[in-house]
Amino acid sequence: MPQLDIRVTNADDAPRIRAITNAVGVFNTEEIDTVDELLGDYFSQGAAKSGYHFLSCHSDGEIVGFACFGPRALTRGAYDLFWIVADPTVGRQGIGGALLARVAQEVRSQGGRLVIAETSGRPDYASTRAFYLKYGYEAACTIADFYTPGDDLVIFVYRVPGSNTIR
Amino acid sequence: MPQLDIRVTNADDAPRIRAITNAVGVFNTEEIDTVDELLGDYFSQGAAKSGYHFLSCHSDGEIVGFACFGPRALTRGAYDLFWIVADPTVGRQGIGGALLARVAQEVRSQGGRLVIAETSGRPDYASTRAFYLKYGYEAACTIADFYTPGDDLVIFVYRVPGSNTIR
Repeated sequence: MPQLDIRVTNADDAPRIRAITNAVGVFNTEEIDTVDELLGDYFSQGAAKSGYHFLSCHSDGEIVGFACFGPRALTRGAYDLFWIVADPTVGRQGIGGALLARVAQEVRSQGGRLVIAETSGRPDYASTRAFYLKYGYEAACTIADFYTPGDDLVIFVYRVPGSNTIR
Repeated sequence: MPQLDIRVTNADDAPRIRAITNAVGVFNTEEIDTVDELLGDYFSQGAAKSGYHFLSCHSDGEIVGFACFGPRALTRGAYDLFWIVADPTVGRQGIGGALLARVAQEVRSQGGRLVIAETSGRPDYASTRAFYLKYGYEAACTIADFYTPGDDLVIFVYRVPGSNTIR
């Protein structure tokens, strides 16, 4: 199995990030446009100012996945995981798990305590929901018919081990 | 009891909106600055482009409360209620209830189905949580320690009567 190498995203990565997002097949045009918007803010303003942190996963010299996360305004230590995508054409190399682990590490290093991942309750997102559960995320909440009638929101929460959660 | 009159917010209302937000006493500086940012986007870009809709509640020629809401990206019909504030110095005139009713009406007229209100689980927000329950919002979800350790997120959901929720 090839070695995975996760690095901060740079501008050269953008075409592959777009291509991978398109290739997944579950995202609609509006969602794919959102990735472009966040990338645009990240490249023009930087991670700290834009609030969007991008990580690229490399394997054998090619980008095979990416993640985007950032701090939630008005909280002390809650982070949103906006996007996590693995190239569907490259087979099971543990790309998603490696990206999730690196996101947790980055969030902890920035003083974060929680990672929030919002996803859909639709049947075609079953593998996504199983993925979060596998890596220690908890399904905290479902809001029925949130995205559209019949398409629920499921909010997953990850509590960063070792972060300060003393009450 | 004076008549309440709810109108779309205009630029003249900004100083009173800031003063009321300050007067409430539960919001920190970062939160108060957020109101200013949203107002700035609303005045410079308009409601549709900024995604922030502001309503002002007038009573006897004075602004006594405001609300700010807008559509949630990547959904068809979910709206966020970002702010709803009544002047704490004017007594109980039903300002909050009148604003909530008008928000529901506006959301429905824009094709919305759900209104999401996020608030704190802290003891000093007990009256806010009771307010949402009184007006038909449901407490859908709690995420412990979301804002800070010891300060939970509570998500309230209002389902707009008569909106299309056929699955």
